[in-house]
Amino acid sequence: MELFSDEYWMNEALKQARIAADEGEIPVGAVIVVKNRVIAKAYNQTEKLTDVTAHAEILAITAASNALGAKYLPECKLYVTLEPCIMCAGACFWAQLGELHFAASDPKRGFSKTDISIIHPKTKLHSGILQEESKDLLQTFFKNLRN
Amino acid sequence: MELFSDEYWMNEALKQARIAADEGEIPVGAVIVVKNRVIAKAYNQTEKLTDVTAHAEILAITAASNALGAKYLPECKLYVTLEPCIMCAGACFWAQLGELHFAASDPKRGFSKTDISIIHPKTKLHSGILQEESKDLLQTFFKNLRN
Repeated sequence: MELFSDEYWMNEALKQARIAADEGEIPVGAVIVVKNRVIAKAYNQTEKLTDVTAHAEILAITAASNALGAKYLPECKLYVTLEPCIMCAGACFWAQLGELHFAASDPKRGFSKTDISIIHPKTKLHSGILQEESKDLLQTFFKNLRN
Repeated sequence: MELFSDEYWMNEALKQARIAADEGEIPVGAVIVVKNRVIAKAYNQTEKLTDVTAHAEILAITAASNALGAKYLPECKLYVTLEPCIMCAGACFWAQLGELHFAASDPKRGFSKTDISIIHPKTKLHSGILQEESKDLLQTFFKNLRN
């Protein structure tokens, strides 16, 4: 079985983010991978669902738990195109995620600006993969929104 | 129209928490009130839904937004029987809640132990109403769980 790289999975998350952009949502996408297989894909749907809790990560965690029939996700790797907010970092904590990978940082609303200890001690944290691609997508989205 | 007190609404949240206990869930309940009327009731359903994000507050915010057809809830008062965790405090932030009332404090997982600035600057924060009733319910639940 071919083992895919973190960049490969983050690119899958970026595909989700592009769907969000196409639907007029702030473009953030996520996938959850376990044993080299995607078990959940999601993108931000706060506008469509009229629900501030419908961030990509929350939807992905709910979907992954549903797929596995398990509340805790220690075997799972979450790839998300933007640094999680405090709400989503809190959800990652409760899920006891195995790995959390995010692409672009979010200096304004990202969890790490507030308190890094939000992340579960067992969760391995990685950032920066495909950050330029994610930033470009977000910047283009907001530029188009203003025009 | 009779105006109900904060204690009245917190008691409604406690009723939700008791439903949770009856269903084997950690007993936390919430209601969301707007203009003296409950628009959302919820209790913790993490076990039933196999979903760590299914806290009472998240379910209540989703239900309230659905009821109002609005993402933001500045006119709403959330009453919850236990201090929100970081995830739920983050959700309250995004919802721009008008008022957040919680009963018992949660020294271990409550948001205020980490960083009080998680709460939206426009959200009025109140705590302590019916805290003994909420604590009793939680302590009895965990005592029964151990036996």
